[in-house]
Amino acid sequence: MSRHFDQAKGLAENHDPQTHDFVFNQTMMRIKDPQRSLKFYSEVMGMTLVKRLDFPEMKFTLYFMAALSPEQRQQWSTDHDERITQTFSRPAMLELTHNWGDEDKEDVDFHSGNSEPKGFGHIGFAVPDLEAACKRFEQHRVEFQKRPQDGNMKGIAFIKDPDGYWIEIFTPEKLPKLLSEHL
Amino acid sequence: MSRHFDQAKGLAENHDPQTHDFVFNQTMMRIKDPQRSLKFYSEVMGMTLVKRLDFPEMKFTLYFMAALSPEQRQQWSTDHDERITQTFSRPAMLELTHNWGDEDKEDVDFHSGNSEPKGFGHIGFAVPDLEAACKRFEQHRVEFQKRPQDGNMKGIAFIKDPDGYWIEIFTPEKLPKLLSEHL
Repeated sequence: MSRHFDQAKGLAENHDPQTHDFVFNQTMMRIKDPQRSLKFYSEVMGMTLVKRLDFPEMKFTLYFMAALSPEQRQQWSTDHDERITQTFSRPAMLELTHNWGDEDKEDVDFHSGNSEPKGFGHIGFAVPDLEAACKRFEQHRVEFQKRPQDGNMKGIAFIKDPDGYWIEIFTPEKLPKLLSEHL
Repeated sequence: MSRHFDQAKGLAENHDPQTHDFVFNQTMMRIKDPQRSLKFYSEVMGMTLVKRLDFPEMKFTLYFMAALSPEQRQQWSTDHDERITQTFSRPAMLELTHNWGDEDKEDVDFHSGNSEPKGFGHIGFAVPDLEAACKRFEQHRVEFQKRPQDGNMKGIAFIKDPDGYWIEIFTPEKLPKLLSEHL
């Protein structure tokens, strides 16, 4: 039996024990203005700043954001060093990089990856209720790339963060039926 | 007391209950050649293909990869629909998008986000032993952007995936001491 759940060319069957405990920990995106990005990710997306790291010599700051329920928040240490270890150990950290002064530079405008040259596409969030989430995004005047009713893939939304990065929004339990129309 | 662990301008203190169960689920990157990318992420990074979704009308395939230990793998369903729900519910899925035919197009070459125009920077993996991991990457002839001994930040490596996307590699327990020299 394969160690993978679906088939595809290229997949390695051997699972090297040295990799068993690898953790896909972080996704890093540059941000122009930390004040507007932190407001967006904490207020609109509900994320928690779990660690801030300032590098004065190199003039940049890293903001590590996590989507934590109040219960999950209790598992985090208030100790600086322990929290660094937690921040780099756990899955699904969003690392926002701010190079000091970029907020004042007119020529700094980050690339979403969705126009040429393409590459990275988006990050994505599962939400309990897509319709309620989108109504709330509208109230927060979030820019939509695609509303749930637009395009081919109904029931999936794309919003934009303050730098223009795309964020896919979906309710997992609705996807098997929704996707079955296209697969 | 703040709901955040460090301070910064812009952070919202209110934690809207509608966002308590939001999950940072996925990071999507386009890939040119699925065979080489699936080999890399399954063999070198040890990841598991948890769901493959083919969209014949729109001529693309999504490959959802997860860093799973053998124990974590047991928690996944072999049922197609249940596994779709799991794939979109859980944190830290790597979504690789393949537009059919891109592997044969000379002009398709994806952008890492780390040269102009900049944006997305990298994904990152926690590994139990950075030195052993890097030795293994060398054996697999992985391209390094930065070896642990290079540059200012000793003890952190950056490797490149087959499309040139950067992957940061670190051992979390080593970081408090390492970072303290720069903070």
